[in-house]
Amino acid sequence: MHPVDYLKDFTFKVFRKTGCSEADAATISEVLVAAETRGIASHGMIRVKDYYQMWQKGRINIRPSITVVRETPGTAVVDGDASFGMVAAKRSMETAIEKARQVGTGWVSTQNSSHFGIAGYYSMMALEHDMIGVAMTNANPLVAPTYSISRMLGTNPIAIAIPAHRHPDFVADFATTPIARGKLAIKGKKGESIEEGFVQDARGSASTDPDVIRKGGAILPLGGDRLHGSHKGYCLSAIVDIFSSVFSGANFGPFVPPQVPYLDPPSHQTGKGLGHFFGAMRIDAWQEKEEFKKRMDQWIDTFRKSENAPDQPRVMVPGDPEREMEKKTRKEGVQLIGTVQNDLEEVARDLGLTFERD
Amino acid sequence: MHPVDYLKDFTFKVFRKTGCSEADAATISEVLVAAETRGIASHGMIRVKDYYQMWQKGRINIRPSITVVRETPGTAVVDGDASFGMVAAKRSMETAIEKARQVGTGWVSTQNSSHFGIAGYYSMMALEHDMIGVAMTNANPLVAPTYSISRMLGTNPIAIAIPAHRHPDFVADFATTPIARGKLAIKGKKGESIEEGFVQDARGSASTDPDVIRKGGAILPLGGDRLHGSHKGYCLSAIVDIFSSVFSGANFGPFVPPQVPYLDPPSHQTGKGLGHFFGAMRIDAWQEKEEFKKRMDQWIDTFRKSENAPDQPRVMVPGDPEREMEKKTRKEGVQLIGTVQNDLEEVARDLGLTFERD
Repeated sequence: MHPVDYLKDFTFKVFRKTGCSEADAATISEVLVAAETRGIASHGMIRVKDYYQMWQKGRINIRPSITVVRETPGTAVVDGDASFGMVAAKRSMETAIEKARQVGTGWVSTQNSSHFGIAGYYSMMALEHDMIGVAMTNANPLVAPTYSISRMLGTNPIAIAIPAHRHPDFVADFATTPIARGKLAIKGKKGESIEEGFVQDARGSASTDPDVIRKGGAILPLGGDRLHGSHKGYCLSAIVDIFSSVFSGANFGPFVPPQVPYLDPPSHQTGKGLGHFFGAMRIDAWQEKEEFKKRMDQWIDTFRKSENAPDQPRVMVPGDPEREMEKKTRKEGVQLIGTVQNDLEEVARDLGLTFERD
Repeated sequence: MHPVDYLKDFTFKVFRKTGCSEADAATISEVLVAAETRGIASHGMIRVKDYYQMWQKGRINIRPSITVVRETPGTAVVDGDASFGMVAAKRSMETAIEKARQVGTGWVSTQNSSHFGIAGYYSMMALEHDMIGVAMTNANPLVAPTYSISRMLGTNPIAIAIPAHRHPDFVADFATTPIARGKLAIKGKKGESIEEGFVQDARGSASTDPDVIRKGGAILPLGGDRLHGSHKGYCLSAIVDIFSSVFSGANFGPFVPPQVPYLDPPSHQTGKGLGHFFGAMRIDAWQEKEEFKKRMDQWIDTFRKSENAPDQPRVMVPGDPEREMEKKTRKEGVQLIGTVQNDLEEVARDLGLTFERD
């Protein structure tokens, strides 16, 4: 097991070595390690080598000048200047919070950014300001719209965080697909097949092959097939894409550049980099602060008391699983898989650092 | 077939007779008939008798004083004063649009309202102002959270409308469940069973019985089961509920009053009436108007060119099916089912009006 602080410190050093400022290296390491502690390993330490190599390839600007390129009292378009996604995203969310302070809510669409890690991190930034936080992002295209075999959309996640009083906060953070890319990869590596309802093959037929993406297949939108509402998942993913890219001037849908060093950006671009969308809403825009939080407590109490189906786990409130995982990993540390440890050793060697295996 | 204008005129007369103002009767008839013309019959003329009887029971205030009870430059909480939902909703969306004009975006949460018809109508109000429109509402509880057998949430729809230039506008309007309540009712009346993945029985087991709601069962969240992401549909529906009720002071989740005359509101209330949430965003907050619309055209062009799966209908852009239906019904008229025609005749007799059968 690796202590959380060890991973954060190591990651900080890696990005300092690439030339990031102290503040930016701290942001990147904090978001990556937050993913590990919250049990979303697909967005954690596994990304360090990818990010490092993206920088080596010159696709990341480690001394970015992040600017607001258009604004109203309640909105802004932010240009991330090709920075690491975390850096542009944190600045954008801070801008949304500042706008909300002035006029009740603030909304920011960000262009010219890259992979930003877990959406939940940015939505949760609003909580300490007694605000509701919203974060979403487009991502490289792996998802086919209903009736299609073309990969047009990313797994485009949505995160929304809402403060409570006595209870822990409500934090929803979910991809708009039935399965995450990372889970497919793990099943594929183990040589296992997957259940139907997650992916389709290159002809658009139901598939149980976790490696189907490499064979021209696609991930299905949330809902699975048309009968069970995949057109609703397609709508959701399309909305995230448009808010993140059409609003900001980033690449949309199939033009979003892949966020791995071994795949080049598509030659045709419709905008700049990858796009995000952020929002912050003051809770006292809606109710007196205490009143708002007590009503959230009442909502959470009510939902916790939902009757369980027989032989099923207890009913949860969004944010419960990640918070429980965080409690555990902060105490026990994080278990990294072997290939990730190898990757981190390799990056460390390259930079004259050391990474200790567990 | 009934011409669209005939239905609108009849509905207008019905609500004038109940004592609604000319403007309010026009709003109610316009939203109900918009549902019929857009092919969402479950929210159209079938509701006239329910609304009429809700009023007869004293549950609707036909001379409401709709007020803003709290506001910031970019937000408002609206009290619908127990009006017909359409009346409170239209006023709320107008308030959101006015706020957006001032500070870029406007957001309104509405309490003390009732069933508002199709969410899409309100989101589309933003389009003529060169704004993006957002509308959502909570609804009477029929949906069980993941792992639960309790009916805690409504089918809680989300509608988002985004203006384009050369192409028709993007309009997504969808329930956060794999199936609508109305479709279950139709299957039930026909004595047909339904596929798995839509509902569960009173013990939480998969069911194919469309009458399962009356037997203590529940509708599943979008995603169907936990394996296929029902927790994501649960998150979405919970967010719609909280934005509509905790924000505004309306009843949340299981306390939302049923919107039919034969079911009384629950004795325990956590707020006032039913709640909605609306948003408007100026497109020129994000890009120059023409630039924004052209980028939307490019997005729509790209998605229309998605390759079709073999033997599947062509790939659609959100809003296509409703717009095609609207074109057809405006030309050919609306086909009402027999029981709806009977209901309308009954309401007409009661009020000294006539309704002509087709």
